[in-house]
Amino acid sequence: MATFMDVHSGFFGVTADQLVAAHEADLAIEKDEGVHFERAWLDPEAGKVFCLATGPSRESVMRIHDRAGHPTAEVYELTVEV
Amino acid sequence: MATFMDVHSGFFGVTADQLVAAHEADLAIEKDEGVHFERAWLDPEAGKVFCLATGPSRESVMRIHDRAGHPTAEVYELTVEV
Repeated sequence: MATFMDVHSGFFGVTADQLVAAHEADLAIEKDEGVHFERAWLDPEAGKVFCLATGPSRESVMRIHDRAGHPTAEVYELTVEV
Repeated sequence: MATFMDVHSGFFGVTADQLVAAHEADLAIEKDEGVHFERAWLDPEAGKVFCLATGPSRESVMRIHDRAGHPTAEVYELTVEV
């Protein structure tokens, strides 16, 4: 199992409720790919969302985000953590 | 106190020891600005480092990273978290 950070851009002015709804859409289907989205952080002024996830591959993370309606190709595999 | 994610680019091939050393350089001086660097994650293939921090301002985070020798202008204020 690997750890990933993915980055979404263009989420300007997204509210807390909208972030929760997007995160719950991921959680609802994440088991299909063996992924777990642990945390998500939003900077609504910069339109950036960061998601920390575990899963078997970068593609598995991308597929869940695709199906949940917020695709991103920017997914980093985090092999070192402090 | 606010929460920030900052992103460093170009850290290709950085090792775990090097990430620890960079993080410890931040920790050694972070109190000067009232900042705390909580976690850091590295993707050595993509050359990306993500740091999660708390502090009084984006500028305070930038000043610590500058002084520690790894400046970045890419610092996001995370006003929403799930």
